[in-house]
Amino acid sequence: MSIDRLIEKIKEKNNPTVAGLDPRWEYIPEYIREKAIAEHGKTNKAVGAALLAFNKGLIDSLCDIVPAVKPQSAYYEMYGLSGLSALADTISYAREKGMYVILDGKRNDIGKTAEAYSTAYLGHVDAGEISVENELSSDGLTVNGYLGTDGIKPFVKDCAEHGKTIFALVKTSNPSSGELQDLVVGEETIYQKMAALVNSWGEGLEGKYGYTPVGAVVGATYPKQLKELRSLMSKAYILVPGYGAQGGGGQDAACAFDKNGLGAIVNSSRGIMCAWQKSGCAQEEFGAAAREEALRMRDDILQYI
Amino acid sequence: MSIDRLIEKIKEKNNPTVAGLDPRWEYIPEYIREKAIAEHGKTNKAVGAALLAFNKGLIDSLCDIVPAVKPQSAYYEMYGLSGLSALADTISYAREKGMYVILDGKRNDIGKTAEAYSTAYLGHVDAGEISVENELSSDGLTVNGYLGTDGIKPFVKDCAEHGKTIFALVKTSNPSSGELQDLVVGEETIYQKMAALVNSWGEGLEGKYGYTPVGAVVGATYPKQLKELRSLMSKAYILVPGYGAQGGGGQDAACAFDKNGLGAIVNSSRGIMCAWQKSGCAQEEFGAAAREEALRMRDDILQYI
Repeated sequence: MSIDRLIEKIKEKNNPTVAGLDPRWEYIPEYIREKAIAEHGKTNKAVGAALLAFNKGLIDSLCDIVPAVKPQSAYYEMYGLSGLSALADTISYAREKGMYVILDGKRNDIGKTAEAYSTAYLGHVDAGEISVENELSSDGLTVNGYLGTDGIKPFVKDCAEHGKTIFALVKTSNPSSGELQDLVVGEETIYQKMAALVNSWGEGLEGKYGYTPVGAVVGATYPKQLKELRSLMSKAYILVPGYGAQGGGGQDAACAFDKNGLGAIVNSSRGIMCAWQKSGCAQEEFGAAAREEALRMRDDILQYI
Repeated sequence: MSIDRLIEKIKEKNNPTVAGLDPRWEYIPEYIREKAIAEHGKTNKAVGAALLAFNKGLIDSLCDIVPAVKPQSAYYEMYGLSGLSALADTISYAREKGMYVILDGKRNDIGKTAEAYSTAYLGHVDAGEISVENELSSDGLTVNGYLGTDGIKPFVKDCAEHGKTIFALVKTSNPSSGELQDLVVGEETIYQKMAALVNSWGEGLEGKYGYTPVGAVVGATYPKQLKELRSLMSKAYILVPGYGAQGGGGQDAACAFDKNGLGAIVNSSRGIMCAWQKSGCAQEEFGAAAREEALRMRDDILQYI
């Protein structure tokens, strides 16, 4: 079970956090941007090269202390095919360095199309005699379950067959998340209904720590719900966004963990990537600043679990 | 308003349908696949080249009678970067041929990340002095509103500023769609709540036909709900999947239209792309078979509206 691989990486590093790789041009140190422009001119290619060089620097500085990275697909799609090529190279570089890669794509669709998305990131497809090597293949993927079970089953199948994981949106970290997710049906909220679906999708796939490859996304900005969902979804690993820049703290995020200190992985993106800008260090020290912030975040969370 | 551009293309062709471009290797005539392998070997590149050649043939055969295409992103992501490159070239070829391009990506996220997705497909971003030309830029995009208003607003902003459209999932065409979407809150279902959100997102953005750039996705497989939602969302254009292969017929799809024969666009993907396999014609005639099926579908729907 791939969730066991993630858990073992977390235990090995004693660090239940994941570094979000959501790069924007503005976050990248100028010397990296200038080098990319010198090599590729003022082109999309230069943007892609700079994103990749920045990510590689971050990965080099984090890979011995942080178990996982979570690239957010939107930030690469935003820069077109060069951005997507940087995403592919980022994924493969992080995996080479031993990191677990959760692609944050929030993919969702029905039947055959959900299968195609799952194939892209978790599974495998042959085109006749051509074995397609998908450069975007990752260890885990975030998904959106609004379409119901038949939209999620193809992902679960690939999780089981290829040792991958998914994290389904349950209660998201944003201010408007309650508009639909908090609506009450009978005695339950929609996010509780979604939690029950998450449980059902993972059934029978427990790994050696009792967790299934079907995890959930619950924001650190809603600690009360996080605590409640931790107990409702006792077999689902929780991916926790919303720490740091969005306002969640270590004590909030700690609500996602079980009594053994497992059960959750907390993400920080801008806090880590932009640590060099906040600290005012030399731009060449961006990796060291990211590492320092990652250690601070780890300790902030560990003190509460 | 970009929705007016779509409506005018529909009126001009007297055809309220959209051809889904969801290619799989198995759908492509052998002579196209062989040529791609001869040129690129048994590689991802050959797959991408074959997808593109197939799509171009379909577009050539359809562009004078069908107003729009809807490539489903999953089928390109499934084939990795070569697939995405074929998607980019498909989008630009269809737009060159005067077709309206709705990318079916069902993208969704919060705040800044929703902005990044919107930028990718509907908006524009500069990277310092580099004006990023996004090869995936489309006329419309499907989105998933489970995260609430702040996850959709960035898309609406780009619709208004760049003359684009979005279609938010309301009631999807698949068998499990009711698991969450049909749950009842007070006196309303979740899909009705979503419909009310769709109305609120489009408010004030009516074009000259009374429709806003914030449309909805409602499956032809649920004609009763389609009729109900047509009247609940009087200003939202409805994108109707589920015709043909999924079981919806012309009479079902007709429920999505207003009394002027506007208000909806009906999609068929496999029915059109694989018409050559079903008809048993020579593989070189795949375009003619697609055209014949597109005309049959048009007439099937027009007779009811």
